[in-house]
Amino acid sequence: MSCKTPGHSPPAMIEIEQVWKAVDRRTVALSAERIPLDQAGDRMLAVAVRADTDLPPFDQSAMDGYALGSAPSGAPFKQVATLAAGHASRRTLRPGEAARVFTGARLPRGTFAIARQEDCTAKADVVRVGVACPHGAHVRQRGGIARAGAQILPAGCRLLPGVAGLLASCNAFEVSVLRRPKIEHLVTGDELARPGEKLRPGRIRDANGPLIQALLAALGLSTRRRRLSDSAAALRKAVVKSDADLLLISGGSGPGGRDHARAALEAAGFAVHCSSVNSRPGRPLIFASRGPRLAFGLPGNPLSHYVTFHGFVRRAIARMEGRPPPRLLSATLRGDPPDADDRRRSWFPARLTLGAGGAEARPLRWKHSGDLTPLAEANALILSSGEAPLRDGDRVAVLPAFDTLEAA
Amino acid sequence: MSCKTPGHSPPAMIEIEQVWKAVDRRTVALSAERIPLDQAGDRMLAVAVRADTDLPPFDQSAMDGYALGSAPSGAPFKQVATLAAGHASRRTLRPGEAARVFTGARLPRGTFAIARQEDCTAKADVVRVGVACPHGAHVRQRGGIARAGAQILPAGCRLLPGVAGLLASCNAFEVSVLRRPKIEHLVTGDELARPGEKLRPGRIRDANGPLIQALLAALGLSTRRRRLSDSAAALRKAVVKSDADLLLISGGSGPGGRDHARAALEAAGFAVHCSSVNSRPGRPLIFASRGPRLAFGLPGNPLSHYVTFHGFVRRAIARMEGRPPPRLLSATLRGDPPDADDRRRSWFPARLTLGAGGAEARPLRWKHSGDLTPLAEANALILSSGEAPLRDGDRVAVLPAFDTLEAA
Repeated sequence: MSCKTPGHSPPAMIEIEQVWKAVDRRTVALSAERIPLDQAGDRMLAVAVRADTDLPPFDQSAMDGYALGSAPSGAPFKQVATLAAGHASRRTLRPGEAARVFTGARLPRGTFAIARQEDCTAKADVVRVGVACPHGAHVRQRGGIARAGAQILPAGCRLLPGVAGLLASCNAFEVSVLRRPKIEHLVTGDELARPGEKLRPGRIRDANGPLIQALLAALGLSTRRRRLSDSAAALRKAVVKSDADLLLISGGSGPGGRDHARAALEAAGFAVHCSSVNSRPGRPLIFASRGPRLAFGLPGNPLSHYVTFHGFVRRAIARMEGRPPPRLLSATLRGDPPDADDRRRSWFPARLTLGAGGAEARPLRWKHSGDLTPLAEANALILSSGEAPLRDGDRVAVLPAFDTLEAA
Repeated sequence: MSCKTPGHSPPAMIEIEQVWKAVDRRTVALSAERIPLDQAGDRMLAVAVRADTDLPPFDQSAMDGYALGSAPSGAPFKQVATLAAGHASRRTLRPGEAARVFTGARLPRGTFAIARQEDCTAKADVVRVGVACPHGAHVRQRGGIARAGAQILPAGCRLLPGVAGLLASCNAFEVSVLRRPKIEHLVTGDELARPGEKLRPGRIRDANGPLIQALLAALGLSTRRRRLSDSAAALRKAVVKSDADLLLISGGSGPGGRDHARAALEAAGFAVHCSSVNSRPGRPLIFASRGPRLAFGLPGNPLSHYVTFHGFVRRAIARMEGRPPPRLLSATLRGDPPDADDRRRSWFPARLTLGAGGAEARPLRWKHSGDLTPLAEANALILSSGEAPLRDGDRVAVLPAFDTLEAA
């Protein structure tokens, strides 16, 4: 025996993977912008970087030692110069002459090879070399890493922090990267008290707003948040007015609130690609687009927001920013999920760690779907297949909440 | 046959693990500060958070459905109210009465249980319940997650983004967290050209400054950078003047530059705990402290900076901020490191991924220690034991460049 909410036939339910496909199909990479290197951390490069000069820009010493004017033959060398990094000499070394050099120093013309400091004895200006030195030993050749004009980094690569030294050495103190999305978060709900306000009967604090803000902040993104009542008109007006690349709507839990979101999006010209997903929590997720603009209707409570943010919204953000989408890892389940027998596709907040045998995921306990305590500890979500109950020791699919360690 | 730099006996060389112990012993956690929740992402909590009210603050519905005034007996219920989340009713349900309720709604007094929407049929104000409902079914009890005053989060925990919803629901829109360090970076070197400046003979761009800035930015930290000549007096003055919690000195590669750093630190009252480490690269690393203030002298080129930052500086920052120190993971080596036979303790830039059999580390190729291209791709460092050459397939210790996935 079952009854539907009067006047509504349920929308067709689609699978999680179908939502991902819809997101991939509808999401357009954002435009490029030129920004200073010191603000470019973790951005995606839009235009390849080329060497502005040979790298290194001159023959340089790879060691602290002596530049020799000829091959060591047993006879002592005469030290005629000392060359630190940053200093240049016009003198050309002649056979039998040597120059004291330090790592990175520009080598004088006529250098045959470098003898390492520990292979020499020096007294006044007489240098004796105790080893044989092949031609070019310990010399870093001009252009040996890259020739001027050669591509140093391809378009489309992620600017990890380690790249900053390389870019600086190419004088690339400005780079072209993909823009980050402008995000707006509309939070609807008559039941939500303002921060600091005394709770009136039936009211609760808005937890979804701060949660989404924190999840975006962990990606280095900010958001503009607007609080709205459960009124359909107010939501429609806010959606029409928005110029965000990505619009997130927290539907509140009032009756018909979710229909408000769908109706408001459609009234503003958005095409709704899904509004019912085989995902627990997160079934009434809305995904919509209008040209390059995307919108998600995020259902329910913070647990549901956490799941739909990581499961769906992060994918759209990654695509907009030209990044690979978040990927599922394979991990060993440690412990049973709280309701392991449910056959629906389910996400379980988990603690992901790396053990000797690979990744391990421990489901976190909670009292009910309104209990936010597991999210304090979660760094991943287990995604069940919905085919068989999950049991301790199973291999399971896990979505890390951070994207720094990739699947092989 | 060997010669030392004239006039200097080499400092005693200590092991990497001894440096870690010295860092742990000398590093004092920073003081606490109260900041807004929306700026507290990833900070370490200094003072436990307690619930300001019962969580949830009232008995609430866990489902969309009907609050029943008595156990279903087959007889229909009379719907007497509709209660959305955020609304409260003074009415007490009597036996045979029901109220339409939505998830999160405050339940009226007299509620026996909730019947789920899909288990009911409703027509006008007549509700029929098709299943048995035990007392309290689908009711989230007031205080069921936490009682007012109970500890929600202990001091010392890391504020992952998922915790923001929980904190907001407790009205904890301000939190006490450990302060982040004030960092100053002194970059010395006569050979360094300014950004955009045309390279004069022998000059190179400063790559260490932007690299350290980017590595700190990846930890959410900023730094004040000062460029100095290789003059001992200028460096001493800058060290004496600094009021940073953490002072980083890039010694340049000029002759005696490293001695300048040590002398400048000692002149400013710092105790030097090490200046020679069995670490390749990074051997002439300086670690010093003066009370709670720490200083590192970072040797050599950007590769060396990358290694010593991850290997040593990050540990000090973690300790200052009350975090667990970066930990080595165990991974399977995929491919031979560039100079696998060297028996010194060595760090190799690597790409760490998670395969079916666990973590895998692929050493990145480079042409010589001045080649920064592998750092563009590196997300980890392999640390050799120095005991046996590393070979493809070996289990190796790996330090991830990011700290989001922990060892089990």
